[in-house]
Amino acid sequence: MRKVCVVITARPSYSRIRSALETLKARDDIELQVVAAASALLDRYGSVVTEIERDGFEIASKVYMVLEGEQPSTMAKTTGIGMIELATAFDNLQPDFVVTIADRHETLATAVAAAYMNIPLVHIQGGEITGSIDEKVRHAITKLSDYHLVSSEQARERVVRMGEAPETVIVTGCPSIDIAARILDAPALEFDPVHKYGGVGAKVDLSNGYLVALQHPVTTEHELARRHVHETLHAAADSGIPALWFWPTPDAGSDGTSRGIRAFRESHDPSNLHFFKNMAPEDFLRVLYHSSCLVGNSSAGIRECSFLGVPVVNIGGRQLGRDRGPNVLDVDHDRGAIADAIRKQIAHGRYSSDSLYGDGAAGPRIADAIGRIEPRIHKRLNY
Amino acid sequence: MRKVCVVITARPSYSRIRSALETLKARDDIELQVVAAASALLDRYGSVVTEIERDGFEIASKVYMVLEGEQPSTMAKTTGIGMIELATAFDNLQPDFVVTIADRHETLATAVAAAYMNIPLVHIQGGEITGSIDEKVRHAITKLSDYHLVSSEQARERVVRMGEAPETVIVTGCPSIDIAARILDAPALEFDPVHKYGGVGAKVDLSNGYLVALQHPVTTEHELARRHVHETLHAAADSGIPALWFWPTPDAGSDGTSRGIRAFRESHDPSNLHFFKNMAPEDFLRVLYHSSCLVGNSSAGIRECSFLGVPVVNIGGRQLGRDRGPNVLDVDHDRGAIADAIRKQIAHGRYSSDSLYGDGAAGPRIADAIGRIEPRIHKRLNY
Amino acid sequence: MRKVCVVITARPSYSRIRSALETLKARDDIELQVVAAASALLDRYGSVVTEIERDGFEIASKVYMVLEGEQPSTMAKTTGIGMIELATAFDNLQPDFVVTIADRHETLATAVAAAYMNIPLVHIQGGEITGSIDEKVRHAITKLSDYHLVSSEQARERVVRMGEAPETVIVTGCPSIDIAARILDAPALEFDPVHKYGGVGAKVDLSNGYLVALQHPVTTEHELARRHVHETLHAAADSGIPALWFWPTPDAGSDGTSRGIRAFRESHDPSNLHFFKNMAPEDFLRVLYHSSCLVGNSSAGIRECSFLGVPVVNIGGRQLGRDRGPNVLDVDHDRGAIADAIRKQIAHGRYSSDSLYGDGAAGPRIADAIGRIEPRIHKRLNY
Amino acid sequence: MRKVCVVITARPSYSRIRSALETLKARDDIELQVVAAASALLDRYGSVVTEIERDGFEIASKVYMVLEGEQPSTMAKTTGIGMIELATAFDNLQPDFVVTIADRHETLATAVAAAYMNIPLVHIQGGEITGSIDEKVRHAITKLSDYHLVSSEQARERVVRMGEAPETVIVTGCPSIDIAARILDAPALEFDPVHKYGGVGAKVDLSNGYLVALQHPVTTEHELARRHVHETLHAAADSGIPALWFWPTPDAGSDGTSRGIRAFRESHDPSNLHFFKNMAPEDFLRVLYHSSCLVGNSSAGIRECSFLGVPVVNIGGRQLGRDRGPNVLDVDHDRGAIADAIRKQIAHGRYSSDSLYGDGAAGPRIADAIGRIEPRIHKRLNY
Repeated sequence: MRKVCVVITARPSYSRIRSALETLKARDDIELQVVAAASALLDRYGSVVTEIERDGFEIASKVYMVLEGEQPSTMAKTTGIGMIELATAFDNLQPDFVVTIADRHETLATAVAAAYMNIPLVHIQGGEITGSIDEKVRHAITKLSDYHLVSSEQARERVVRMGEAPETVIVTGCPSIDIAARILDAPALEFDPVHKYGGVGAKVDLSNGYLVALQHPVTTEHELARRHVHETLHAAADSGIPALWFWPTPDAGSDGTSRGIRAFRESHDPSNLHFFKNMAPEDFLRVLYHSSCLVGNSSAGIRECSFLGVPVVNIGGRQLGRDRGPNVLDVDHDRGAIADAIRKQIAHGRYSSDSLYGDGAAGPRIADAIGRIEPRIHKRLNY
Repeated sequence: MRKVCVVITARPSYSRIRSALETLKARDDIELQVVAAASALLDRYGSVVTEIERDGFEIASKVYMVLEGEQPSTMAKTTGIGMIELATAFDNLQPDFVVTIADRHETLATAVAAAYMNIPLVHIQGGEITGSIDEKVRHAITKLSDYHLVSSEQARERVVRMGEAPETVIVTGCPSIDIAARILDAPALEFDPVHKYGGVGAKVDLSNGYLVALQHPVTTEHELARRHVHETLHAAADSGIPALWFWPTPDAGSDGTSRGIRAFRESHDPSNLHFFKNMAPEDFLRVLYHSSCLVGNSSAGIRECSFLGVPVVNIGGRQLGRDRGPNVLDVDHDRGAIADAIRKQIAHGRYSSDSLYGDGAAGPRIADAIGRIEPRIHKRLNY
Repeated sequence: MRKVCVVITARPSYSRIRSALETLKARDDIELQVVAAASALLDRYGSVVTEIERDGFEIASKVYMVLEGEQPSTMAKTTGIGMIELATAFDNLQPDFVVTIADRHETLATAVAAAYMNIPLVHIQGGEITGSIDEKVRHAITKLSDYHLVSSEQARERVVRMGEAPETVIVTGCPSIDIAARILDAPALEFDPVHKYGGVGAKVDLSNGYLVALQHPVTTEHELARRHVHETLHAAADSGIPALWFWPTPDAGSDGTSRGIRAFRESHDPSNLHFFKNMAPEDFLRVLYHSSCLVGNSSAGIRECSFLGVPVVNIGGRQLGRDRGPNVLDVDHDRGAIADAIRKQIAHGRYSSDSLYGDGAAGPRIADAIGRIEPRIHKRLNY
Repeated sequence: MRKVCVVITARPSYSRIRSALETLKARDDIELQVVAAASALLDRYGSVVTEIERDGFEIASKVYMVLEGEQPSTMAKTTGIGMIELATAFDNLQPDFVVTIADRHETLATAVAAAYMNIPLVHIQGGEITGSIDEKVRHAITKLSDYHLVSSEQARERVVRMGEAPETVIVTGCPSIDIAARILDAPALEFDPVHKYGGVGAKVDLSNGYLVALQHPVTTEHELARRHVHETLHAAADSGIPALWFWPTPDAGSDGTSRGIRAFRESHDPSNLHFFKNMAPEDFLRVLYHSSCLVGNSSAGIRECSFLGVPVVNIGGRQLGRDRGPNVLDVDHDRGAIADAIRKQIAHGRYSSDSLYGDGAAGPRIADAIGRIEPRIHKRLNY
């Protein structure tokens, strides 16, 4: 019985790995250990852990690690606390493999703890280009990992060029596309987002089209976060189109963004914006699928929306360098430019589906790979 | 005034960086901040911090971070504690650049803390091939670093192939060779090692040639550490040649090695082995220079000894894949094979000097590079 | 020059110590070192640190220590992180005395760090009776402290009975009364709370009397927190009297209380309740002074309100055992009982001022005591 | 089934609790959870955990928490790390009671973690007078504890005077006397200490009487530790009587003591001193029973030796204020005074047994009390 420990540290990582978790859980030869950690445990970020449990996964360990403060130093310290706490969790769970997802500091904490504890490490979503601190962290995790389950051929090529042995790099597609594929199969929006999720702000009528907005702070410019989000808020408010705005995930600077949103609400009381703290991933994608346009800097615009064909106005440098489909219009943090791009995208309407990031079967492929790979922890630069 | 913070976490990292520190300290345009951390602060490992101060460097901050236990989990936790504590130190010192050396877990703690605190990070000794966990950690640090001051052209090529921008990778040579170069200039051994450093074990007569032995545990096989060191101890004891044996630095498993040494001393009471806890780096190299052969798995055998022309019997996989000169004979953990190799190396005698790892001027080149580079923290995979 | 380090970890501790800080700062023979820590640094709790700086105090060190989660285990871990981080701060600041206030876990972290670092520790507000975990912590801090500056004769007697040497226990009065005394001197309410502090909820007219409500969770019953706060919310909403409701400070369970408040707002949309996150201490007291009644379980009801003569409905066990004046009516967590008590208190109107907790000159007395006491760290049970 | 978690953090605490553990383990209605923590896990201190397992107790959790450095700041940080790590252990084990022993910083970490996690806390050995930092810590733990199992009537009286409810304070006697009682029942020394435990130093003949020496550093004077131990070493060496010297346990300054011992050995090479790192508690007591005199500052001199009737030369202030029997001669850190006292005690010979600290049945009484007490965590100063 192969013990596979998947560490989930934030909403997006759960969203991306869920279809793989389902396949792993269904296998007889694998004991799935789900560790819920960091913001996945916190109310402020919508208590992802509750969703995980509701989806039928047992939590093997809860690892609190977020040091409040949203400063660069508290990000470093949060990473350190995570390492300390995850080492204990791994010691108790004794997994045969640890699985870590993407590029956040909690992901790095997972990777370092597993590496020093001599547990073979599987990284999902290596080889992608982002920017800012995530760029460094993602590739550092690649160097600490023993296996790489990547989203695309381009990602595979990059991981191999970084010196990883080709046989350890497997293209599975991005598991986030799996959920998107379910939406395409049955796209009806059967619930009222406000009725189901509450939220605050204006009452909005979604029947004639609506925007979805989601803007994360860009870590290394956290003083600018507030100004940045104001440009987007102005563009969204001024458009007059009903918009569903989603709160950002925690990071150094999320505070700037969050305060920016709060300040804007108080001073402008926008009549077309409704704000949500969180939403179940599938519901979010469904809402996204039916929207006229996604505005902001979420990676969902790059990944899921390319598959769903949803028009995207991508703002600023957060997704710079990521492979993208034709559905993405890039603009700067400027309300005028954002407003123009929204108009263009609405005029264009839905794009055709693009399988750049996967075809919807990543979950089973990931589970299959994890069930098959040899436990190994020694590696050497492949040059 | 450019504030440059160099973090020294262990004896070897001090030994390697000292000549660069001297040059940095002498410059008017640079404020040198020396942080002493981890085993560099501990008595058990010879209180390197005392040496640093004796050499005229002021300590800007002392960072205690070693969690006792010598388990894989305590290595992970030590890394986490280091991150927490170094973040505070960087917050207080506000350096313009952080410099980190080589591939240990404390080095990784330094790199992660600097990266998340948006401080440009300079890595010394990237691009080298080692093995075991160090292999992963070294290249992960490369991915977190903004500049790479490397030892050799081969190292440079590897770092660039990993996706680092060529203009950020500078060949300086390995600073450890700088100290070796001073030995070559004035090779006389003017002190009696036992008289100066004490130690325990047999009285040894060094006048007719002697061995130097230094064996570190190989992290991920820490149960084997004891057996491994016994093979070497038997070979050294059975050779009858006087030998100076140096205690290993701390690591998961050093305990196995250390206990192995203690058990061997008690049961065999070898009449030709004298044991030292530590030695000033220059004294160590001088003793090494005059030895007939270095036995063990120290990287000094690969680096400094290639330049000094000292014959080396390198045991096991710890240095696997590292570029090496003709002075190195590789053998397995087998007392017979080790004994044979010692005989061969003594028969061969001194090798000619090889500048594979540098020509003795790395320190000034490192200081020059650090004084010249632009502060930058954004980077992107260079593919 | 005597270096005195005052650690401020939460809004109430700043509120209570401010008048002493002013006197300490004005002295020539004392170097005041203000450390801002824990929730005093966090936006979620109103960024007390900003107020401290605005009041003219320089921050010597910022210590982030709150591990998010609001679980019993995260309270323990927060205390541990505080100890680690405060030890570093004390090492850097090298104070001659550390001053800690009241009974929270951050206060305990301060006390333990100072005790193990051999720094004489001054505790403010020892010897009082509270309840729940605070009861244990307050007296544990007494046993770790070298000097005790207490609020009342009763408190002094208790500290001495616990075995502290009488000469180390000094009655200064509670410094929180000092601010209250300024209000009595010039009671005019010159600002509109909603205009100055914003907040959310109903528009309220304060001209015909209003309630102030503030309810903290009771730590060891954190599942009940939500139910408890609902009783109070119902009583306040049903009274129809305009009420200013203040958000609780962070603790295990504050989440229960906070969620309770949020849920009530959404489901009941009360037309007479306005909610504030925080207020400058003096403004808060001024608003309190003009209110018809304070409802909840805040210690301000016990201390400041006895001096200000404000009627108080004190709910549940949080203040159980604390010395109280005639202005306090104690009731259980029951909406009917709370409503009755509110009616009674409004019928009674303002009480006469009681100096049970001090006469308004605690600050200078505290500063005087700190300037006078001998540095000592050895003590022995005085039986 | 009542789950009782006993945290063992050092050799002496195991020694003292062992007889209670045996009784607890034998009970059907109690599930014993032994947590091994701090120096109990470390090789440097004789791997107490191995002994615990050899004695038939299963280890429920291993908690590494010692931050190397032996500085005041590392003691504070070790306490903080302990709190973080023990909170996780308690979260996993979910005990109904936590049992903590004596007065060390790891004991305090245990107490704080249990208190904040709302687990009823049982303290063993409260109410005793020691001195230095331990004095503060012991009574602080009393204030955090819910039950107090004390050694003597005097201790009981002190705990009650500190404000604890009388019904929560139970005189059990000190469990360390239980082991001593077994020695008195069957006193034969059936093993050769050097043969069984090795150690280093002179070959000593124990047949004509011998000294036992054990000296701990006094925490808050850690620079003096080296000078202090030299006085004792000189007195012991100069006496010419064979002496068995035991290495101290870890603490800030143990380094001073340890270095002092090492330096003395190298410079004086004493011909009558043999040094041990550790010994099983029962073996140690047996060796002690047969000795002519115990020299140093160990609490064993105060407790076990009063029961065993062994003459004790107690040096310096470490045991100041502790209740003691007639077998103890107190002297200052002065080699002449120590030598005199040794002579007097040897001239006097064995004392009669004194039951000041218990009668040998503390273990069953402790187990009985723990099986009987009500789980409660609320308390209030009993004045």
